[in-house]
Amino acid sequence: MNIKSYSYQDIKLLLGEHVIIGDVNQIKITSLENIDTNKENAICFIDKNRKDKEELLDKTLAKVVVIDDKELKKQYLTKVLIQVKDPKLTISFVGNNLFTLKMPLGIIHESAVIHPEAIIDKLVFIGPNCTIGKVKIGSNSIIRSNVTLFDNVEIGSGVDISSGSVIGSEGYGYNRDQDGKLIQFPHIGRVIIENNVSIGTNVSIDRGALSDTVIGKGTKIDNLVHIAHNVIIGEDCCIVANAVICGSTTIGKKSYIAPSSCVRDAIHIGENTLIGLSATVMKSVPSNEVWVGSPALPLSKYVKNRKKISDL
Amino acid sequence: MNIKSYSYQDIKLLLGEHVIIGDVNQIKITSLENIDTNKENAICFIDKNRKDKEELLDKTLAKVVVIDDKELKKQYLTKVLIQVKDPKLTISFVGNNLFTLKMPLGIIHESAVIHPEAIIDKLVFIGPNCTIGKVKIGSNSIIRSNVTLFDNVEIGSGVDISSGSVIGSEGYGYNRDQDGKLIQFPHIGRVIIENNVSIGTNVSIDRGALSDTVIGKGTKIDNLVHIAHNVIIGEDCCIVANAVICGSTTIGKKSYIAPSSCVRDAIHIGENTLIGLSATVMKSVPSNEVWVGSPALPLSKYVKNRKKISDL
Amino acid sequence: MNIKSYSYQDIKLLLGEHVIIGDVNQIKITSLENIDTNKENAICFIDKNRKDKEELLDKTLAKVVVIDDKELKKQYLTKVLIQVKDPKLTISFVGNNLFTLKMPLGIIHESAVIHPEAIIDKLVFIGPNCTIGKVKIGSNSIIRSNVTLFDNVEIGSGVDISSGSVIGSEGYGYNRDQDGKLIQFPHIGRVIIENNVSIGTNVSIDRGALSDTVIGKGTKIDNLVHIAHNVIIGEDCCIVANAVICGSTTIGKKSYIAPSSCVRDAIHIGENTLIGLSATVMKSVPSNEVWVGSPALPLSKYVKNRKKISDL
Repeated sequence: MNIKSYSYQDIKLLLGEHVIIGDVNQIKITSLENIDTNKENAICFIDKNRKDKEELLDKTLAKVVVIDDKELKKQYLTKVLIQVKDPKLTISFVGNNLFTLKMPLGIIHESAVIHPEAIIDKLVFIGPNCTIGKVKIGSNSIIRSNVTLFDNVEIGSGVDISSGSVIGSEGYGYNRDQDGKLIQFPHIGRVIIENNVSIGTNVSIDRGALSDTVIGKGTKIDNLVHIAHNVIIGEDCCIVANAVICGSTTIGKKSYIAPSSCVRDAIHIGENTLIGLSATVMKSVPSNEVWVGSPALPLSKYVKNRKKISDL
Repeated sequence: MNIKSYSYQDIKLLLGEHVIIGDVNQIKITSLENIDTNKENAICFIDKNRKDKEELLDKTLAKVVVIDDKELKKQYLTKVLIQVKDPKLTISFVGNNLFTLKMPLGIIHESAVIHPEAIIDKLVFIGPNCTIGKVKIGSNSIIRSNVTLFDNVEIGSGVDISSGSVIGSEGYGYNRDQDGKLIQFPHIGRVIIENNVSIGTNVSIDRGALSDTVIGKGTKIDNLVHIAHNVIIGEDCCIVANAVICGSTTIGKKSYIAPSSCVRDAIHIGENTLIGLSATVMKSVPSNEVWVGSPALPLSKYVKNRKKISDL
Repeated sequence: MNIKSYSYQDIKLLLGEHVIIGDVNQIKITSLENIDTNKENAICFIDKNRKDKEELLDKTLAKVVVIDDKELKKQYLTKVLIQVKDPKLTISFVGNNLFTLKMPLGIIHESAVIHPEAIIDKLVFIGPNCTIGKVKIGSNSIIRSNVTLFDNVEIGSGVDISSGSVIGSEGYGYNRDQDGKLIQFPHIGRVIIENNVSIGTNVSIDRGALSDTVIGKGTKIDNLVHIAHNVIIGEDCCIVANAVICGSTTIGKKSYIAPSSCVRDAIHIGENTLIGLSATVMKSVPSNEVWVGSPALPLSKYVKNRKKISDL
């Protein structure tokens, strides 16, 4: 294997605003590693929240370390320190550009089954064993393997849908007739996946009944999430693993829905909210609030209740 | 696109018992929409529980509205009102017949891999990238895409299994030997999926150990549900998204298991029960009861406990 | 169908240490059944914890019964009793050897898509519609159908990965930039699946960020489980259905994580712990403890809290 080496010139533009402490000519990077590495030619970072920065710098063998812009107590003559505002963000830009595999665009794997009337941009990747209905897919979007897209799914550009996910399936909307038999309500809406959305593995997103299910621009959905019919999720949200968003619920932008939480149907979660791990949300949540527990309560009320019980 | 238009004659039989207020010749329907539509040629409905029926009728541009049979305070001269007992049910029959895509029967996609000894009715649909073991599948059943059916799965007629679901896999039954190693108990039972069952996307249903796992007639299972080995679910149940039914548990007919709930192993949930959102059911539940919370309690007891804490 | 019949000679070595009560020549077994069977030529077992052993023996029509080594109150002249220490374990060895279907090794289904640089032992089974990246797979491993393995997944020998599972996908690690946009942290680690691990259906296991995600030897993972990036699970653990293990958490050997539980990120679960049904684990758990509830507490503390509320 031919290992590539990157110089300061290669990474300069990826670093954003930065200050170099040390000799830039010493920057010869062959890998991206954790700070506890024993590889000299690695680039590493130290999270800005770490209290033990000096200790970590003393120990690491890596010569190039991205670190925050606070003053250090001593000098590290054998290293090159790259000071930035948010080292984790900076290392993300470096890593994503230099060390992660990009899927080649312009490729539809021969084993994928594609509806003849699907409208698919030329610059996409569609992986093996996918089943793609009568959909629209924008440029630079990646559909990995064993994904199913039903008809009437509209996918923007820069979208990444990972393996095993199913999007656009019939929603779960049953009503009992006189005999108690379950009659399905018709589901003829679409799923709209806006630009730069990422969707993890084994995710299920149902299409809307009479209107659409919408995943807003830049929102990131983790593995094994269920998004029911007619849910509308705003921009730049995090919907983390195993979360369930029930039918017709709406979520404002920049909200964070933690793993294994469950949000009931037909409510509204405001902008910039945080729903805690395994929370069960039974009513609408105002913007900018943190709700936790089952049933979910505002954090301060939840903490008060816990204290009451512990004080008994 | 050639838009089809439906007249009163086309929908008459789908409406069931009904009364028309207005001129039936005005019925020219080209789409099914929500009541807030601005499409004149849409058919809409107003749920019987809405309090704002008159307001909705005033606002909608749709000319044909299905509504319940209670008297209205005023007349709507430019509309045709179709009065029925349950507007949502009626619109379901209309919508499912006229506006939803039917899968063509008699089709097994060439990319599906089918066991040579599988016994499959001629009138079925089996979609792309399915893996079908030595199973039986009855008439009018639909297996969408990327579905796996293991050997010894028996599927009735009118069954719909959506994409990414896996049925008939080995159950999870391990016992530790003297050294603490996990030894699998043999799973040689079947999965029986009775007539008119629907199963959502990315569902996992395991086969039984020495006897069978059974999903009763007309039961509807939502996405990402786990049904363990030897579970027996009665007729016309709802098992909603992300629910887990652990091994050997039985559920009586017409029960509703809400999203993200978890029912422990080897208990019995009675008929016509309701298990609440994210509930954790630790013991058997009598018929006709509502249990909620973790651990799940009868609703009244749960409410009492919540009040006790809030009163502290 | 030609039904095979097994004699004492066929099962003798599978029984381990045992005592026969009755005539070994009467052992002619054609099937493995539950104790309530009406099949004479079945082999059955009675769990050592059952209180109604005599009653079960009176009722069953099976002639061969595996039972524990405690003295019985009466004689069963028409039966052959096989006394062992743990009947369930013994019947597992018999059943797994004689009555369960073995996947043929040395087979890669023609519909599987395999990376040309994947290093795969000759004695494996890879089923239909799998998508296999640049991985390593050891001998006697079984990859069932519609499985996706991303690049840099390393699978030991004797591993069983069931249908619909996705292993090695990008972890969920986002940080917001100045504008609140979500920037993915690079995920360039591997997933290491050690020997004799079993993984159920529709499981999601993410690769590590800068180091690896590891599933320890002999661990058994049930359906619909989510294992996040950089999780390290020890040997011989049970991770049961719908459980979520968040990023960078470690779990000691022989622990049991019950269905629908959720373990937060960056904590440590000790060895030989038991995490209860639907528990939400918010902090590290010492070895040899049982924690239940949400937030999870040591069992005794949880019970005390429940009692406090009920006593109010």
